[in-house]
Amino acid sequence: MGALEGIRVVDLTRILAGPFCTALMADMGADVVKIESPKGGDPIRGQGEIKDGLSWYFALFNRNKRSITLDLYSDEGKQVLADMVRDADVLVENFKPGVLAKLGLTTDRLEELNPRLISASVNGFGSTGPYADRPAFDFIAQAMSGFMSVTGSDRSGPMRAGPPISDLIAGVYCAFGIVSALAKRGTKGDGQGQHIEMSLVNGLISMMAYFAADYFASGKLPQQSGNNHPIVAPYGLFEAKDGPIAVAASQLVTVDRFLEVVGLTHILQDERFATNAARMNNRDALNEVVNQATRHQTVDYWIEALNAAGCPCGKVQDLAEVFSDPQVLHQEMVQEIEHPGYGQVKVTGFPLKMSRTPCQLQRPAPRLGEHTNEVMKELGYDDGKITALRSAGIF
Amino acid sequence: MGALEGIRVVDLTRILAGPFCTALMADMGADVVKIESPKGGDPIRGQGEIKDGLSWYFALFNRNKRSITLDLYSDEGKQVLADMVRDADVLVENFKPGVLAKLGLTTDRLEELNPRLISASVNGFGSTGPYADRPAFDFIAQAMSGFMSVTGSDRSGPMRAGPPISDLIAGVYCAFGIVSALAKRGTKGDGQGQHIEMSLVNGLISMMAYFAADYFASGKLPQQSGNNHPIVAPYGLFEAKDGPIAVAASQLVTVDRFLEVVGLTHILQDERFATNAARMNNRDALNEVVNQATRHQTVDYWIEALNAAGCPCGKVQDLAEVFSDPQVLHQEMVQEIEHPGYGQVKVTGFPLKMSRTPCQLQRPAPRLGEHTNEVMKELGYDDGKITALRSAGIF
Repeated sequence: MGALEGIRVVDLTRILAGPFCTALMADMGADVVKIESPKGGDPIRGQGEIKDGLSWYFALFNRNKRSITLDLYSDEGKQVLADMVRDADVLVENFKPGVLAKLGLTTDRLEELNPRLISASVNGFGSTGPYADRPAFDFIAQAMSGFMSVTGSDRSGPMRAGPPISDLIAGVYCAFGIVSALAKRGTKGDGQGQHIEMSLVNGLISMMAYFAADYFASGKLPQQSGNNHPIVAPYGLFEAKDGPIAVAASQLVTVDRFLEVVGLTHILQDERFATNAARMNNRDALNEVVNQATRHQTVDYWIEALNAAGCPCGKVQDLAEVFSDPQVLHQEMVQEIEHPGYGQVKVTGFPLKMSRTPCQLQRPAPRLGEHTNEVMKELGYDDGKITALRSAGIF
Repeated sequence: MGALEGIRVVDLTRILAGPFCTALMADMGADVVKIESPKGGDPIRGQGEIKDGLSWYFALFNRNKRSITLDLYSDEGKQVLADMVRDADVLVENFKPGVLAKLGLTTDRLEELNPRLISASVNGFGSTGPYADRPAFDFIAQAMSGFMSVTGSDRSGPMRAGPPISDLIAGVYCAFGIVSALAKRGTKGDGQGQHIEMSLVNGLISMMAYFAADYFASGKLPQQSGNNHPIVAPYGLFEAKDGPIAVAASQLVTVDRFLEVVGLTHILQDERFATNAARMNNRDALNEVVNQATRHQTVDYWIEALNAAGCPCGKVQDLAEVFSDPQVLHQEMVQEIEHPGYGQVKVTGFPLKMSRTPCQLQRPAPRLGEHTNEVMKELGYDDGKITALRSAGIF
């Protein structure tokens, strides 16, 4: 009984940003029907680590969805799509701007088919403006949004985030927008629908936070500070005996706690380190003094001692450490689901914890077209019509 | 007329993750009442670039909200808070786990006061489990979630994202969770509420994408690949005459387009570069060959030529470039709002574009306690009671 139970989503998305949006809705209980090309379907089915023919990447981002195949470039396929739209609450797509209209679904046509519909588009730069037609990609959005200009250090130069965060952030945002529109319309569909648009670049720009605000206020460009804090020291990665520790001593009281735990309270008498301003000016010397102290003990030792003192700190965990971390396991961020024919498949869990309508693994990611007949019957198509469409290569 | 118009939010959040969540709801038209300590309020009021006494960082994350002051540690303050909860649709907080209960608002008490209430908590690691009581911080979440282990290069070591993305991602997720719960409950409040929880670490873990899926499938740890793609080449930053260009030639067809534009189609005859596997093995040599070609022209030249050929590419823009970029301006991602006494203040715009209920700047970020009297009157408090509470130092 998810929060979005009963909400029907027609899902035309492929690859990542759109499928993440619809996965979030499916995790919340929405009925997401993924429409895929009969010629191989979502390209993600062939990407990432493939085990016994199954992409675990596809499995992660398409759990809880159903799949139908449909030739969207045929007249009959367009008719089936129109019938589905008439019957849906939500349509989501992440084609390049203009492709949906080429499939016959202009904004006017969508409104005509179903005035209650919430339609949502995820794209790279927005559907209007000088870059609307440019091909989009996560890495490009990271570069164009300013994100890379404030990530990395002087030494490394501009650095991208490893994960495709512009896709994923756009996906969460779009889900938020859709559900807000659903709340406005009424989940029973008694109100009016609307169109929502979300772009990779705009999403990341909205996350420039104090970098953006400080730039607007001062006109000064932020500097790349690597793992250091731009205006606080000590802060960053320090060297324990067996690896780095991340320390965020962002307030004076936390600095005191940190220095006490590592046995360096006396350096506050040293004029190089007496104030935050002085410590910023002598950051390299400060970091070396701190590293000399922290190198004597292990990562685990410092994490325990610093947390006990109330100083925010943590290990720089690799994925093996993350997915065996007792807190991560306690929070059920690793889950398994039975994929018929493939055994148990591990996926990441649900970050949103809902007390009354918890997110749940209700079904594994679908085989290509697994639910075509089932969905067509729900649309009211009879066996003869389904067989005819299949014979014509529409499914 | 925002999508969340009429939704009343009691906002106990401070700093970033929580305030971003409630800012997103306020941008959607919700009536967000920010409750602040009479002793200075949200610490963000004193952080970031301060202009004429106004933090533009605070202004960005608190636009469209109202502010009241309230001493939550006094009996009278607790009573006012209880009255507000009784009257609200949503309560959001990002205290350390346990603090809300200390303020008298246990889950049971919230349910008793208002069974229709959606209450939401944002925290570092989740409210239960071995790390529940640890102090949380964006940088620590980036370290603990695995994010830093897949960001940066061999040379740079693990690298954090410059922006506080774990806070911001948790904020968007939480807004999505809240609105999903509202959709379930009915925005008219005819259904039952529930409690939602969102943590910084869990949010980032959910964004490990193919890194997580591939690790689950293979048991192998991903390598840090800096700005290069882990399994595709050429891809990354290349050197134009006047700066770097980001190129994401992620498919064979895009590789062909890229090499044609830069005049290097012939290198596909070179056995070092004939296949993607060969190019990955000889990435340094490949990048040098590409750089030799790209160095002859400017960034602008390549961006135009590559986009014309359909190869995803972009500038690595700094914030001055981002906020003067014609596409960014066309998308209204820079907005201004009049702050009485401070003139025009620039803020980033709304990434979600809603056709019927667009997000809007309706009011500037509030002065500390600006709306205390107004909100108390809406609660039904008379002038005498308000004056008495003010005299007692509750506001």
